[in-house]
Amino acid sequence: MTSSVPVTMSATLAADQELERRRRAGERVLFLASGEIGLPVLPQLRERLSAAAGRNAYGPVSGDEELRAAAAGYWGRRGLRTDAADVVCGPGSKPLLFALLLAVGGGDVVVPVPSWVSYGAQARLAGCRPLPVATRPGEGGVPDPDVLREAVVAARAAGRDPRCVVVTVPDNPTGTVASGETVRRLAAVAAELDLVIISDEIYGDLVFDTRRPALSPALFAPERTVVTTGLTKNLALGGWRMGVARLPSGPLGGALRERLVGVASQVWSSTAAPVQAVAAYAFAEPPEVRAHVAACRRLHERVVREVAGLLTDAGARLAPVQATCYLYPDFEPLRESLRRVHGVRGAGELAALLGSRWGVGVLAGTAFGEPGHSLRLRLATSRLYGDTDAERWAALSAPDPLALPWIEASLQRIGHVLAELTGTAGRRP
Amino acid sequence: MTSSVPVTMSATLAADQELERRRRAGERVLFLASGEIGLPVLPQLRERLSAAAGRNAYGPVSGDEELRAAAAGYWGRRGLRTDAADVVCGPGSKPLLFALLLAVGGGDVVVPVPSWVSYGAQARLAGCRPLPVATRPGEGGVPDPDVLREAVVAARAAGRDPRCVVVTVPDNPTGTVASGETVRRLAAVAAELDLVIISDEIYGDLVFDTRRPALSPALFAPERTVVTTGLTKNLALGGWRMGVARLPSGPLGGALRERLVGVASQVWSSTAAPVQAVAAYAFAEPPEVRAHVAACRRLHERVVREVAGLLTDAGARLAPVQATCYLYPDFEPLRESLRRVHGVRGAGELAALLGSRWGVGVLAGTAFGEPGHSLRLRLATSRLYGDTDAERWAALSAPDPLALPWIEASLQRIGHVLAELTGTAGRRP
Repeated sequence: MTSSVPVTMSATLAADQELERRRRAGERVLFLASGEIGLPVLPQLRERLSAAAGRNAYGPVSGDEELRAAAAGYWGRRGLRTDAADVVCGPGSKPLLFALLLAVGGGDVVVPVPSWVSYGAQARLAGCRPLPVATRPGEGGVPDPDVLREAVVAARAAGRDPRCVVVTVPDNPTGTVASGETVRRLAAVAAELDLVIISDEIYGDLVFDTRRPALSPALFAPERTVVTTGLTKNLALGGWRMGVARLPSGPLGGALRERLVGVASQVWSSTAAPVQAVAAYAFAEPPEVRAHVAACRRLHERVVREVAGLLTDAGARLAPVQATCYLYPDFEPLRESLRRVHGVRGAGELAALLGSRWGVGVLAGTAFGEPGHSLRLRLATSRLYGDTDAERWAALSAPDPLALPWIEASLQRIGHVLAELTGTAGRRP
Repeated sequence: MTSSVPVTMSATLAADQELERRRRAGERVLFLASGEIGLPVLPQLRERLSAAAGRNAYGPVSGDEELRAAAAGYWGRRGLRTDAADVVCGPGSKPLLFALLLAVGGGDVVVPVPSWVSYGAQARLAGCRPLPVATRPGEGGVPDPDVLREAVVAARAAGRDPRCVVVTVPDNPTGTVASGETVRRLAAVAAELDLVIISDEIYGDLVFDTRRPALSPALFAPERTVVTTGLTKNLALGGWRMGVARLPSGPLGGALRERLVGVASQVWSSTAAPVQAVAAYAFAEPPEVRAHVAACRRLHERVVREVAGLLTDAGARLAPVQATCYLYPDFEPLRESLRRVHGVRGAGELAALLGSRWGVGVLAGTAFGEPGHSLRLRLATSRLYGDTDAERWAALSAPDPLALPWIEASLQRIGHVLAELTGTAGRRP
């Protein structure tokens, strides 16, 4: 079979499946690879799912009215006035991002470097060409506006056809948040170059300093920015598959929306109806949902900051983490000793070593578009909170989650592994 | 925005949404357009969903082991021995069909004429070219093997690259079932021409004569046939979005499976975990599930046969319906009077007339690939069984569902509309 469309397995999902196989085979493993949020389902969400178990009709392709109105309210409370008619739901924000690329309809897609493993792969599957553009230091997820302009102008001069730019605020993999000024300038350059902005804001509720939320490009270029989010990260509902997209109002938005709904109608028809009922409740943000999201955010922050300390103590370089459950350390300062002691020359080898020698699953920066010789890794702390629902609830309510034995043990293990890897003493021996 | 990928809204979903708008505006409408199964959720399935509401992890891309094992058993009981490792689940069989086209990776896709509205549209979205091939009279869903051979040979001679053929057994839109001999010959021609067969068997449990089940091409060309099915049609769970694919064993199947899982990992990650738990239970086919599917099948048969009688009484031509809830009448014998009395020259105008004058939603055969001048329509009876769960349960258990007032009223209305349309007297005045 000749194959013209390249297919690569999602690196995060592949890493987790591999580690899970090893765990089942009796190995002692530590899941730091995927961004799956290892936290329990809020009981009210479970109740809503049960109550909606009689809903078996397809319903509208774009989602039930109740859900779309709730999502519109969710965005409205974040400074983005939204008409429910401009909301489209899907089985995860991932399929929505893919369908948006099909809706844009070809050409080149600017993706930040580093960026989430699936943007580039989705672009290729959708018949688009990824056009990588570097981000500014400490401001992951948003291509440097000046570099973006140069790259798009050069691509067009070379006969290529860049049509849209994907951004991630807050960012995966770096856990940083682009500044308002950078987002504003990105939006201005996109307007100048007539690019659609696809803004993946799935981590929007996981900015640690709630007084300084991430700013959406939709605030600055409302006529051309599509925003996506979902329940996967803030409410740990990855396995329920629910996302929403907010299309711009105006002619460009209307045309995009029509094509997006057309693609959705042909690819997935509609989104699981009982899950839509849950989402309608969650996006309305009643007090118990807000409190739960806040508890999750505090837990992520506490653990992420601790692991960040272990990494910098071990000699890795790390931009201050402001959001998410991700760390993106650069082991460049340790390059010489990593090469000499372990024969490691790049992030791929470093990740493989951590996996094979210590059972620690991490992702190499190459999965996020970094060059092969770089020594950047992505770590996620979201599977450290416990193995059972009881442990995870305890982590969410503990005054000091780091003192819980299972979390303490994982942190110590990370410290020990880093000490062995780098030949340094961990901060906590 | 220049668009290189064509996007068309699914005709069935669009028709239903339009009719629903008119219903809400107070019009009296009759839903005969979409194949949504208007029947209630079996209580045991609701219970399983509730019991699984704590499952929020992504799980394997291909689906939980329990589900894959259950689906393997389901196929095994139908003569297709299946290894659970060869099963891949997705949020509906529709996204699986789309992902399979991406996995095949371009080229031409042979689609039967007529065939389900989404095959052609999905092929174009996936960067493939649909290659339409006529079916044999009364044997919908399977391209005539001799015509298939000619078409593929001619296409290859013209530099095109046909790689797979899609079949539907039992068939949508015709409600017929290709004979075992035709399926066997289709499989032989596919082997001869080295085509992958994608066999959509979502209606497999809805063959009226259970002693003569539809035969899958996987029985005849096991090394190259992918089979898809789901819970949408047999258990009325369209709105829960659950499908499964059975990949062939052997090298071609292994390569296809790897690419399919890769695409799935990039497009939808995994399938709603609580719905997977329901599917694991349903595919194991405990007695209450079998009994419910049997009751649904009997109800479809009773109503479909009755409406078939109304159509033939009115002068339309119709192959004997053997399965599903669909009717595919041809109004060709009435062409002259339809033109003279209503100015109708093709199925599009006929469907529009039925909608605008009588509030009856049907689909024109053009949506299924028929030429514009044809007078074929597709009708689905699956929304005639009641407007409430109580009515629908009554329909499932009634000794004579046709005598239930709401079903009787709908049938009378269809008879009256046909009488007015054709100038004939309906069988039941």
